[in-house]
Amino acid sequence: MTAAPVWSVDPRTGKHREQVAVEATADEVDATVREAHAARGALADRTVRAAFLRSAAAGLETVSALLIEVADAESALGPVRLTGELARTAYQLRAFADLVDEGAFLDVVIDHPDPAATPPVPDLRRWKIPLGVVAVYAASNFPFAFSVAGGDTASALAAGCPVVVKAHPDHPALSELVAKVLRRAAAGHGLPAGVVGLVHGFTAGVDLIRHPLVAAAGFTGSVRGGRALFDAAAARPVPIPFHGELGSLNPVVVTEGAAAGRAQEIGAGLAASMTLGVGQFCVKPGLVLVPSGAHGDGLVKALMDAVSDTEPGVLLDHRMRDAFLAGVGERAALPEVESPVTPGAAGAHTVGAGFLTVPAARLNQAGAHELLLEECFGPVTVVARYADEDELTAVLDRLPGSLTATVQLSPAEAAGEGDAASLLARLTPLAGRVLVDGWPTGVAVAPAQHHGGPYPATTSTSTSVGGTAVERWLRPVVYQNTPEPLLPPELRDDNPLNLPRRYDGVLER
Amino acid sequence: MTAAPVWSVDPRTGKHREQVAVEATADEVDATVREAHAARGALADRTVRAAFLRSAAAGLETVSALLIEVADAESALGPVRLTGELARTAYQLRAFADLVDEGAFLDVVIDHPDPAATPPVPDLRRWKIPLGVVAVYAASNFPFAFSVAGGDTASALAAGCPVVVKAHPDHPALSELVAKVLRRAAAGHGLPAGVVGLVHGFTAGVDLIRHPLVAAAGFTGSVRGGRALFDAAAARPVPIPFHGELGSLNPVVVTEGAAAGRAQEIGAGLAASMTLGVGQFCVKPGLVLVPSGAHGDGLVKALMDAVSDTEPGVLLDHRMRDAFLAGVGERAALPEVESPVTPGAAGAHTVGAGFLTVPAARLNQAGAHELLLEECFGPVTVVARYADEDELTAVLDRLPGSLTATVQLSPAEAAGEGDAASLLARLTPLAGRVLVDGWPTGVAVAPAQHHGGPYPATTSTSTSVGGTAVERWLRPVVYQNTPEPLLPPELRDDNPLNLPRRYDGVLER
Repeated sequence: MTAAPVWSVDPRTGKHREQVAVEATADEVDATVREAHAARGALADRTVRAAFLRSAAAGLETVSALLIEVADAESALGPVRLTGELARTAYQLRAFADLVDEGAFLDVVIDHPDPAATPPVPDLRRWKIPLGVVAVYAASNFPFAFSVAGGDTASALAAGCPVVVKAHPDHPALSELVAKVLRRAAAGHGLPAGVVGLVHGFTAGVDLIRHPLVAAAGFTGSVRGGRALFDAAAARPVPIPFHGELGSLNPVVVTEGAAAGRAQEIGAGLAASMTLGVGQFCVKPGLVLVPSGAHGDGLVKALMDAVSDTEPGVLLDHRMRDAFLAGVGERAALPEVESPVTPGAAGAHTVGAGFLTVPAARLNQAGAHELLLEECFGPVTVVARYADEDELTAVLDRLPGSLTATVQLSPAEAAGEGDAASLLARLTPLAGRVLVDGWPTGVAVAPAQHHGGPYPATTSTSTSVGGTAVERWLRPVVYQNTPEPLLPPELRDDNPLNLPRRYDGVLER
Repeated sequence: MTAAPVWSVDPRTGKHREQVAVEATADEVDATVREAHAARGALADRTVRAAFLRSAAAGLETVSALLIEVADAESALGPVRLTGELARTAYQLRAFADLVDEGAFLDVVIDHPDPAATPPVPDLRRWKIPLGVVAVYAASNFPFAFSVAGGDTASALAAGCPVVVKAHPDHPALSELVAKVLRRAAAGHGLPAGVVGLVHGFTAGVDLIRHPLVAAAGFTGSVRGGRALFDAAAARPVPIPFHGELGSLNPVVVTEGAAAGRAQEIGAGLAASMTLGVGQFCVKPGLVLVPSGAHGDGLVKALMDAVSDTEPGVLLDHRMRDAFLAGVGERAALPEVESPVTPGAAGAHTVGAGFLTVPAARLNQAGAHELLLEECFGPVTVVARYADEDELTAVLDRLPGSLTATVQLSPAEAAGEGDAASLLARLTPLAGRVLVDGWPTGVAVAPAQHHGGPYPATTSTSTSVGGTAVERWLRPVVYQNTPEPLLPPELRDDNPLNLPRRYDGVLER
């Protein structure tokens, strides 16, 4: 069997740019995972880990011109967006380095003996340790931020876990370059190259999730691919945590009051959000509930104007373009669905943005229109017009889990008048991030961020962005009656590293 | 179809005591889950939740005499042990009430806008919300502490989740009584009865895990039963978290130095730990690595003496008795396995404790002896004699995940001399609790406790005992740019409830 070539492809032309690598065989996946497993110990020192993450950030910046050029050639996302995404990626690596330094994520809890308790409490000292090798499945739509040096890699390394990245086939050349930057940074701190492995190929990805030495996985991609890997992770003799981000509708509710006061602004804002990055964001608003009547009509008109002005764009690859055209066609053909601006092909390689409208009453029952409650990747959104509160509520009750849920309010509603609080309470069970008067695109890197949501948004309750993402790659262990000389310094009474801890029940900072 | 009767059975005689209930039909499971789901909102108030948990503890104590009598009749565990277990259960309910009051588990993180960040940070306010209805699968071996009012129920209610308990068939009468105590406590605080549901029957347990409104599950039981439910939870159209405690070998390593100095004490301590509760603890030491030679021989002799003095006991049910006798027989028949004190039948309903010995070299390869690395529920342990460090290491490298791993050291080793630190480092990947010079039986209820471990000990990285158990029933949600009037008080700047929070990156207590 000859090794299958891995080509770098230009989505603007559909042409092969160069052969980058070959797909990894089962033996090569095994060797890569073993090399990562062997590198675990090297990541034990938190000071080294933090320094490595900072060097990785600096390393990306040093060769940013080359990286952005290659990323643009493979993704067509454009240098402006990619420059921002690289900056975000470097910022994220440094944010995790700061988190490693602080050490709060170790969740240290110390209890001294209490013979009077029922049953008696011995000396107990708990903290969190890294799980082991983490498999990272890179996304297509963020060649930097959710790929080789992206959030999953950064949080796993911060946790002390070596990673093996399964490269996304849409940007293999960039993946190789970024992996080199990471390994050079690792070498600069005496870390073995095995702390960041890279494999190409669909089968390699399946081999990876089944490998006995892989201890956890992070994934960003489609429902179909993610669910297949989730199922494989659960079916292993020893199941492992699978933190997958699969698909998200990201509903938006516009109240009558908001439409009355801000139809123009909301229509234009929606157009900008749904077409950002040619609609290829996991948090693209995919269903917008707009009231019937004149104010809602005004909003739709503003959306028409803004979307009509949007330039056609190139999708990440031709498979996605085909899926977008098919998905839009299938949706547009449903009864009572209209296309005020028809999304579709705009040239051999580009697509034009558009949107569909449908009466909300069509979404309140089982049937063909349920398709409109599934994500359609690309520059399209569905505007559902609701006649009253009951129709709105009935649609919300049928929505799957999403990464985000958004509400557009009037100033009076935002000040607490009317039913805005109960609307927020109704949106909260649907999503991991709830927004007021904003748009879901743009996911800040911040301690409070939560990028995850009820299935199919994510397969676990965790986040892939923000400080708490590190929790996914750790497990607690408690030492009982263990003499100080045998304890790590983090668990000693004198707290030489000055960590925040819970000490005899009391939180100490 | 007639409803299948649920009988209370006396394990001391094998006789039916009384018919307690009937097995729940699919419709009854559905109704119970819907009632629980409808009760969610009632648990939103943390003050009420904490008061409810404290009333439940007091309620158990009020009728403790009756509860212990019924528990003893159904479990044969004896009033002394059961009195302690009930006290532990009440203590646990109160500990979770304290945790609810403190509110640190809400994990509040607040970030104010930072337009200079890449990308810009909006106003973000994160906390954790309850997942929804939790299915609790009660254990046989702790009719109070891991059953209807046990740890899973207490932590789920503390999180704000209604529970539906699948009763263990070994103590259905007690389960009904305890559920009544919980519901009476709920009613005393104006909470609906649906906050604690109870169903009987194997099929009901399967229906429960598949119910669309069940949001998570906790389980304590066998590898076979737990894995089947784990698989069902993962195979749902919407998978849910399944926190199962399945099986645990709980290895113990005795160093040459420890055997030299404390052969008698260790032999006696081991006998007490492995026969406690007729060997029916999930943390029973099931494999003990003892050095070859005279000191190890002395330890085995001490173990013989102590185990020989142990009275026969009654196992929880006859199915377990059959499994114990079969499991012991199969293990004892393996080549080079000896039985210094033969475990086995000691009457029509009782069993006698015993232990097996085997050369550690037999455990270093695939084959029939791998059976000795699986848990055998009941009063038996396996003593593996190791000739040297290499043999010991080779066995440790083959061990499955456990709840606990224990090492018995000499005083010099405990003071840091020799290789004790590396031995501890070798045991840590195997378990969730690592003990020095103690015995794993006896799981303290304390903030630092971790009762969980690598698969098959548990199916997740979480704990079922200790304060952090509450984390299993929560998921984070973040509010973006949400006006103060629409925020819960926990997320407001002025922190009216005085919660510990991370505020603009800084931990505040």
